[in-house]
Amino acid sequence: MSKISIDEFAKVELAVGEILSVEKVENADKLLKLSVDFGEIKNTEKDEEGNEVETISRDIRQIVSGIALYFEDYKVLVNKKVMFVVNLEPRTIKGLESNGMILAVSNNSGDFSLLYPDQKVSAGLRAK
Amino acid sequence: MSKISIDEFAKVELAVGEILSVEKVENADKLLKLSVDFGEIKNTEKDEEGNEVETISRDIRQIVSGIALYFEDYKVLVNKKVMFVVNLEPRTIKGLESNGMILAVSNNSGDFSLLYPDQKVSAGLRAK
Repeated sequence: MSKISIDEFAKVELAVGEILSVEKVENADKLLKLSVDFGEIKNTEKDEEGNEVETISRDIRQIVSGIALYFEDYKVLVNKKVMFVVNLEPRTIKGLESNGMILAVSNNSGDFSLLYPDQKVSAGLRAK
Repeated sequence: MSKISIDEFAKVELAVGEILSVEKVENADKLLKLSVDFGEIKNTEKDEEGNEVETISRDIRQIVSGIALYFEDYKVLVNKKVMFVVNLEPRTIKGLESNGMILAVSNNSGDFSLLYPDQKVSAGLRAK
């Protein structure tokens, strides 16, 4: 594979996501629909008098992933913190919006693993 | 952060590395010098009679990383499998060649974690 600069790597935003829920996608054996929490987002808004007000919301996203067949029971994923790519252009998969991609390592021999940070770290932590 | 295409993400090669040894770098509190195994590399060479012969070697690299202060005892890293970026241009840090970068998540509050695949997978497995 070609070499890249540190700047090219830095374009990719990798973050810890906490999986809140997992469902099978109908008529798609490989697909899981995840709801994933990427932590707090701080927003600055103006109130009625024009003052800047900071509001906090959570960055919760739907992510569709083709990893279903790697798990005997995909429900083990619930409450797990694993790594995602979080700044890919959103895609539509089987009619479902997917706003990010789960990170996994695999080979052609069936080896497969998700990538886990220490489970005590917060959702939303970024790779730097 | 800006959105990226899947092709931009695919330029980045992420791989499981097994840490073979760890040493402190002299006169650099934050730096560790790692020797990391990234699995087998298949090479095709020609023998004396011009026949193609496949040889196998291991992809073992020196990687210098500024993570020393996150570990009470950095020796815990030995034999661990963690994630690395493996196609960055090599750099020289304190006179030592570094041929890759360890992946970690962190924030400004001191939270920090390396990224772990299931420890049973093989060194060299790539993110896809």
